Amino acid sequence: MYLHGGDIYRNNVKYDFSVNLNPMGMPKSCIDAGCRGVSLSGAYPDHDCEKLKYEIEKNKGIKSEDIIVGNGAAELIYAICYGIKPKKALIAMPAFQEYERAVAAWGGSVRYFDLKEENNFQLDEDFINKITDDTDIVFLCNPNNPTGNLTERNLIEKIALKCEMTGTYLCIDECFMPFCEREDEISMIKEYGKFPHMIIIRAFTKIYAMAGLRLGYAIVPDRKARESIRSKIQPWNVSIPAQMAGVAALNEKGYIEKTREIIKEEKEYLISELSKGLAEKIYASEANYIFFKGREDLKERFIEKGILIRDCSNFENLKKGFFRICVKNHNENVEFIKAFREICK
Amino acid sequence: MYLHGGDIYRNNVKYDFSVNLNPMGMPKSCIDAGCRGVSLSGAYPDHDCEKLKYEIEKNKGIKSEDIIVGNGAAELIYAICYGIKPKKALIAMPAFQEYERAVAAWGGSVRYFDLKEENNFQLDEDFINKITDDTDIVFLCNPNNPTGNLTERNLIEKIALKCEMTGTYLCIDECFMPFCEREDEISMIKEYGKFPHMIIIRAFTKIYAMAGLRLGYAIVPDRKARESIRSKIQPWNVSIPAQMAGVAALNEKGYIEKTREIIKEEKEYLISELSKGLAEKIYASEANYIFFKGREDLKERFIEKGILIRDCSNFENLKKGFFRICVKNHNENVEFIKAFREICK
Repeated sequence: MYLHGGDIYRNNVKYDFSVNLNPMGMPKSCIDAGCRGVSLSGAYPDHDCEKLKYEIEKNKGIKSEDIIVGNGAAELIYAICYGIKPKKALIAMPAFQEYERAVAAWGGSVRYFDLKEENNFQLDEDFINKITDDTDIVFLCNPNNPTGNLTERNLIEKIALKCEMTGTYLCIDECFMPFCEREDEISMIKEYGKFPHMIIIRAFTKIYAMAGLRLGYAIVPDRKARESIRSKIQPWNVSIPAQMAGVAALNEKGYIEKTREIIKEEKEYLISELSKGLAEKIYASEANYIFFKGREDLKERFIEKGILIRDCSNFENLKKGFFRICVKNHNENVEFIKAFREICK
Repeated sequence: MYLHGGDIYRNNVKYDFSVNLNPMGMPKSCIDAGCRGVSLSGAYPDHDCEKLKYEIEKNKGIKSEDIIVGNGAAELIYAICYGIKPKKALIAMPAFQEYERAVAAWGGSVRYFDLKEENNFQLDEDFINKITDDTDIVFLCNPNNPTGNLTERNLIEKIALKCEMTGTYLCIDECFMPFCEREDEISMIKEYGKFPHMIIIRAFTKIYAMAGLRLGYAIVPDRKARESIRSKIQPWNVSIPAQMAGVAALNEKGYIEKTREIIKEEKEYLISELSKGLAEKIYASEANYIFFKGREDLKERFIEKGILIRDCSNFENLKKGFFRICVKNHNENVEFIKAFREICK
């Protein structure tokens, strides 16, 4: 069963607010590189993604050998489960649903930690006590999807320490981190080797708006875990267009800074408009999407207007009336607010 | 460890004879569609590959709902193992090495059936007796890679019947079948539902020379097996360029017929030249590649000349001195033979 947003293929959609992609769209350099990649695709892709990993190393300071490149971050979530074989996983809910599915795909079970609505679904220190000796893996999405909450560095480090004590893998999904102005302060990338059980996932999908090309990577400092995870994936998992577009993306200048400016400005606009009687409650939004409470039939009403939004009622620990929209370009955001006003009339 | 041919990224190669791709190259319509796909890749791909499955249904008479599309056939081999969880797999060797790796990735063990060199590595009825109640899956590559042998329809049906009796899944990899003139007579596609445990794998990779885009599909008539296999893969596994290039490929007219003509002609040329004291023994070659015996240092000697060939000594049941080359365009084949003559001087 398909659980996610973005099904523009079976909905008549003018504006898709249900997926969290960069409103700037894919950089032209990536489209060009992707097209060159297509014309070179008469050969097999490099199974080792050598050039791309070299660019990631140069750009992010991650040793090339510690990286596994994936056909999107989602492939890596599954491979991590196949490779680590977690009997018991711990996930703070709501969170991206592929963690649960990947744990189930391998055959493990999930213990849910319910983030408290009265606490605005913010992760807190209670979570640390739930990590026990029989916890094999913790999935943590930072900033969290769908809530948009950031977990502060201080708490992440405490969780990582506890995981080292209990021998638990800690998989931090930082796919939306590049949208955050506080990335440098919060991301664990710079200290990725400090905690041997810590795995970090990053995607090109969202920040470079290349969801259709599929590209992500995992940073796995522990050699045994890394080899086990890699062995669960076919050799040629990353297409040539994706590898080449990824290299181009990492050579973009100013794209992420510009993205953050737009997101900041447009988020302010959307939140200010949503506050005028449209949304019932708006949550802190540290990424490029806004999580809010509203009338229960919103998704259906928006579809009537050719707009897709993410109904979050199928997330564990959420119920009807929770929604997520992405922050898009100004004109689109204006159309969205206009439609919302008509629905609420 | 990387086991295959095609590593043009870490070898200085002028001609790659180590991978079995169509010498006609990717059809222009596929390159164009792939490029359009790149420019549309700001959105997520269709998780259900609806359009592509519709084209496969129209083109091959396979019901859309019975198809799982993969990021290359290789992804499907792994997913089949994760989904079916074969404790014991039976494989006639030598065969494509990803079967073994995929069985091991899931955690099963492989029983090898040694194809006999004195029988030219041809599969025979002895194989049927090796399929027992505790055999969970049989992998069969037809035509076989690397040997190029075809298994006749009659024997395949006997194997399929035995598999139904023992409750064994039979996975027939027909990735190279479109290169065979006798495809209609040998392929099991037209009767795919007749044996509920039979799974057929097909690839676009080889016949449409789009290995860099990654595209293949599995035909799984059994609903429970199909759902289990699909649940082991991330939702967005097939990129937009791959889906669109696949649709274009299925609308190509005359490309496969033309391919078969070239392969036939060039195979005759290569075999005739190889027979003139270059190869020690040449095996029946029903696909777009030639399997032969020759002096043990051939791979290294060819690399010195900028030519990559497939040293098959790392296949189970093969030893040093077995090689596989693909059939390429005439000029390339001439260069290959020229180099071979120089090596043998």
